[in-house]
Amino acid sequence: MKYACQRGGIMKKSLILTLIFLSIFTTSSFAETTMSEEGQYIFNSLAFYIGGVLVAFMAAGFCMLESGLVTTKSVSTIAAKNIGKFAICSIVFFLVGYNLAYGIPEGGYIGSFSIWSDGTEMGTGYSGHSDWFFQTMFVCATASIVSGAVAERIKIWPFFIFAAFMAGLIYPISMGWQWGGGWLSTAGFSDFAGSTLVHACGGAAALAGVIVLGAREGRFGPRGEKRSMEPFAASSIPLVTLGTFLLWFGWFGFNGFSQLAMGTFDDVNAISKIAVNTHLAGAAGTVAGAALTRLLNGKTDIVMMLNGALAGLVAITAEPLTPGPILAMCIGAMGAVIMYFGTKFLESKALDDVVGAIPVHMFAGIFGTLVVPLSNNDTNFSTQFIGVISVCVFSFVLSYAVFRILKETVGLRISKSAERLGTDKAEVGVSAYSIRD
Amino acid sequence: MKYACQRGGIMKKSLILTLIFLSIFTTSSFAETTMSEEGQYIFNSLAFYIGGVLVAFMAAGFCMLESGLVTTKSVSTIAAKNIGKFAICSIVFFLVGYNLAYGIPEGGYIGSFSIWSDGTEMGTGYSGHSDWFFQTMFVCATASIVSGAVAERIKIWPFFIFAAFMAGLIYPISMGWQWGGGWLSTAGFSDFAGSTLVHACGGAAALAGVIVLGAREGRFGPRGEKRSMEPFAASSIPLVTLGTFLLWFGWFGFNGFSQLAMGTFDDVNAISKIAVNTHLAGAAGTVAGAALTRLLNGKTDIVMMLNGALAGLVAITAEPLTPGPILAMCIGAMGAVIMYFGTKFLESKALDDVVGAIPVHMFAGIFGTLVVPLSNNDTNFSTQFIGVISVCVFSFVLSYAVFRILKETVGLRISKSAERLGTDKAEVGVSAYSIRD
Amino acid sequence: MKYACQRGGIMKKSLILTLIFLSIFTTSSFAETTMSEEGQYIFNSLAFYIGGVLVAFMAAGFCMLESGLVTTKSVSTIAAKNIGKFAICSIVFFLVGYNLAYGIPEGGYIGSFSIWSDGTEMGTGYSGHSDWFFQTMFVCATASIVSGAVAERIKIWPFFIFAAFMAGLIYPISMGWQWGGGWLSTAGFSDFAGSTLVHACGGAAALAGVIVLGAREGRFGPRGEKRSMEPFAASSIPLVTLGTFLLWFGWFGFNGFSQLAMGTFDDVNAISKIAVNTHLAGAAGTVAGAALTRLLNGKTDIVMMLNGALAGLVAITAEPLTPGPILAMCIGAMGAVIMYFGTKFLESKALDDVVGAIPVHMFAGIFGTLVVPLSNNDTNFSTQFIGVISVCVFSFVLSYAVFRILKETVGLRISKSAERLGTDKAEVGVSAYSIRD
Repeated sequence: MKYACQRGGIMKKSLILTLIFLSIFTTSSFAETTMSEEGQYIFNSLAFYIGGVLVAFMAAGFCMLESGLVTTKSVSTIAAKNIGKFAICSIVFFLVGYNLAYGIPEGGYIGSFSIWSDGTEMGTGYSGHSDWFFQTMFVCATASIVSGAVAERIKIWPFFIFAAFMAGLIYPISMGWQWGGGWLSTAGFSDFAGSTLVHACGGAAALAGVIVLGAREGRFGPRGEKRSMEPFAASSIPLVTLGTFLLWFGWFGFNGFSQLAMGTFDDVNAISKIAVNTHLAGAAGTVAGAALTRLLNGKTDIVMMLNGALAGLVAITAEPLTPGPILAMCIGAMGAVIMYFGTKFLESKALDDVVGAIPVHMFAGIFGTLVVPLSNNDTNFSTQFIGVISVCVFSFVLSYAVFRILKETVGLRISKSAERLGTDKAEVGVSAYSIRD
Repeated sequence: MKYACQRGGIMKKSLILTLIFLSIFTTSSFAETTMSEEGQYIFNSLAFYIGGVLVAFMAAGFCMLESGLVTTKSVSTIAAKNIGKFAICSIVFFLVGYNLAYGIPEGGYIGSFSIWSDGTEMGTGYSGHSDWFFQTMFVCATASIVSGAVAERIKIWPFFIFAAFMAGLIYPISMGWQWGGGWLSTAGFSDFAGSTLVHACGGAAALAGVIVLGAREGRFGPRGEKRSMEPFAASSIPLVTLGTFLLWFGWFGFNGFSQLAMGTFDDVNAISKIAVNTHLAGAAGTVAGAALTRLLNGKTDIVMMLNGALAGLVAITAEPLTPGPILAMCIGAMGAVIMYFGTKFLESKALDDVVGAIPVHMFAGIFGTLVVPLSNNDTNFSTQFIGVISVCVFSFVLSYAVFRILKETVGLRISKSAERLGTDKAEVGVSAYSIRD
Repeated sequence: MKYACQRGGIMKKSLILTLIFLSIFTTSSFAETTMSEEGQYIFNSLAFYIGGVLVAFMAAGFCMLESGLVTTKSVSTIAAKNIGKFAICSIVFFLVGYNLAYGIPEGGYIGSFSIWSDGTEMGTGYSGHSDWFFQTMFVCATASIVSGAVAERIKIWPFFIFAAFMAGLIYPISMGWQWGGGWLSTAGFSDFAGSTLVHACGGAAALAGVIVLGAREGRFGPRGEKRSMEPFAASSIPLVTLGTFLLWFGWFGFNGFSQLAMGTFDDVNAISKIAVNTHLAGAAGTVAGAALTRLLNGKTDIVMMLNGALAGLVAITAEPLTPGPILAMCIGAMGAVIMYFGTKFLESKALDDVVGAIPVHMFAGIFGTLVVPLSNNDTNFSTQFIGVISVCVFSFVLSYAVFRILKETVGLRISKSAERLGTDKAEVGVSAYSIRD
């Protein structure tokens, strides 16, 4: 050690202090062999990156699901709405929404334009850009819920305007109440990845749209009686199935990386447990949809299986971490059951939700949020109830107002002749399929 | 160094010991600048997570491949089978299979319910949940191999029951012989990512199903002679192609992350080399399929290119790490050649494998397993042969038994009138396509 | 500290030196709590791995986009071309291209076969295999640009031969001028992820192919006048949309992981910022395509929205890191505008680019490369101009030569009768769709 000691004699003081710091630091760092701060920063940012890409796949999933479920003459239109909404919501959320959601003072109701930054401080724990990337995919998902419900009769550009309001105002404000640190968060409300903040919020907006627009021509009789679905047959079941698979996989990003960190032992364990619960809830929803339709109607309805999977995934989204796998499966299965009867209920009210978005996202989302206290002891039913009601009412009322204003000004619904011709020919000018033998 | 030495004099003994520990630890840790234990844990768990998501895409890939290859009247049904099987296999593997596979005593034949845990001990090296997430996607793949082969004539729910047996009993037991530390592993058998344990196992089960069910009505003549394929034309080649691409990409998770660790220099190098070999084997299989059909039949058959890609990928799966890239390409190309002649062989025997699952997964899988000793010196042909035979016979016999029991009890095959009508109308009640000009 | 000093007296000299090294290393490593060298190696290799998988999805994206945009009778063929090209380009790039691209001496013009290695030295900073995996997906993308433009009239195998030249010679040489450290790199040219080196290069090759081949039968009148597009209607708009989504998501790998490292605070920040800029540029391109067609033609053309998205993504690819998000959106929108008028320009010249590959990839790529100096102060317009011209001319001239040689020898274009029958029946022997009610 002599050599080292001699060398030590000519060390700069800063280096000596560093060694001392090291001696202290050592106890927590080395003996425990934890991640370095930089490593945590990279892992956290990478989690947002991978999560963002996975949730982006949900945009493609929604597009395929909706393209497959509408009739042939509206497929190009729904594709245009999906990619257009993906673009518009991202831009508006960048310009307006992100700041409204995350600039909220504690316990407050609305944010201000004060928080966007490059986020390149190590102290934040992750890249600000990667966080925005992840969050913007959530707002795109919220708006996607609406487009399917109001398909085949809404004009393209008024829908785009609504999507801009959704991404710039409605979603950011109510979401910020919780994830931005606003009053719901202060009150003790809990919604891990957005059963209410994303899914029920989007579903409530969809309900407003469906009410303002009215049903498709010929979908229900003059007194709301159900008519043959034959003229409204889904254009492509394989695309609906593909869309559901993509949504399912996207959920591994949606729920898993809503842990918002991956740089520690505990975080990666949480992410992993969330993946298992999410997957099993989706699986149980699928089986519930299959069994229910087979038992009640004699046929194993593929659409109800797919919507069952989605309802199960929506239901577990409010709390994918604390339940055990068995409870997760029960929640997923119940979500599918609620979706099934919710679909029948809407039909009985002559509400024309083309893809079943309201029962899948709103009804199952509300259910999932309300049962969080079953496994999470830090929550209680009444606060969950307040949160659900607040977000749904806020989203419904504002959406209703926007849709009504659009209806009275630029017009919301295509003409009857355009609807008979199909929106693809009337609005887009490109037929979806040209398949000849 | 004086200052430090003085400070040392008032250090707590534990801290001094820590420093000493550090001095020793240093040689392996700092000079080599290795990952911390926590970092390794995160990387390993993340590998399972990303790998699980990629292998999940294979479920969508199988679904698209099979949806595209069946006739129009069975597309909704095959979609229902694929998403249903994805759900059921996951649930059953959770409840039963995982424990049967991984609870096997060394050299044993069957596991017990003793190993499922949250796995949140740092010492395990990875999250137990992420491991389960990864493994469950493999059992889903195994069952997917069966659904394509028996398509268009099997009833939905008996198929689901079979899938449950596959995920709960057949696959876990034979897979556990090797990956669970059972007798095959002890004997020195080697199957890196499952050419035999997944693909040949699934293919053998598919063969049992095809034999028990018999061919589709009109597919072969009364004495087994080949008939026009025209009435059995594939419904959508682009979906078959999409499915193959998704399977190919899923294989980067399937093979790469079967390294089961990513937290060290050596592990990430192995994963990377596996990706290159896997990709080149798939590429060589594609070219072999294209060249073979062009040379033998004058046309470049897209289906044989796609199945060639898959056969190449299956063949390299038994040992994607030790071969050099040239050998990997040879193995992939040979896998495709075997698939091609295997397809002709099955046709000559009037065995109706709708999507070519048996030649792709069983024949190419067996080949890939048998040629492992070409590059892996720790293996030998006879042990590889024993492993292949054991797994295939076990899977075939149990699958045959389950299919026969189902046939004799609840019934396995749809009625002739239902087959003529198509399973979509008869069993699912939803037509796959409604495309109108 | 006495104990430690005593212990030091019996330490091996190497250990003492290690401790000294540690003392120095400490200042940068511990006080700053940076990643270990092994951790960086893993992160960098993982970045290539994830990036490679994401860019691989672009191959599926191109395939779906092109399958959807061609007429029904050429869909199986374009699928065969896409998977075949994916395979052939990978093999040829492995055997030839990679060494030609990366073995270039500084300031040189062409590489030699000297650089392929396993890359399993910690000092390289990443796995050589993972680097190859990432890079090979880029050459596949380059060749994909060509296949769409020349669709519906080129013979399959001559196209495969061209793809082999692209992957083995044309792309590697011009790309190596920059990314291989050749003369363009020395001259100060800047092209972050390949607006010119990938997209304009591929687009220039496509232009050569379109000129040599001539337009599809009946696409233009005898004097080049535009005719009804009705007989050339896109076979499936939902598949085009799916393809565009997959390409968009693939771009998060294409641009983000072209940072080529993820193991430091700065690298992961750069990757995250790139993702945001890339996403917003694509979004702005989509909106520009929608607004432009709505304003000019009264309909919101879905194909122009999708190609607008791609043009926006191509344009930002040359420099996705230095612009702010607003500038990124402007670049994306301008890329879409250039694509739109470029499409009209090609049509006016009777150049039959089936999918719009030339305006999307070449025109928007050139634009994106030329505007790099707007945000990157290390570049200047004249050097950017030299780079664009050099690569485009090189790619065009060599591609033109290869196409002409193929035309004069093995023949390039299918017969008129085959074109009327459709390449699916004439060359592949498998109809793309068989959808019956």
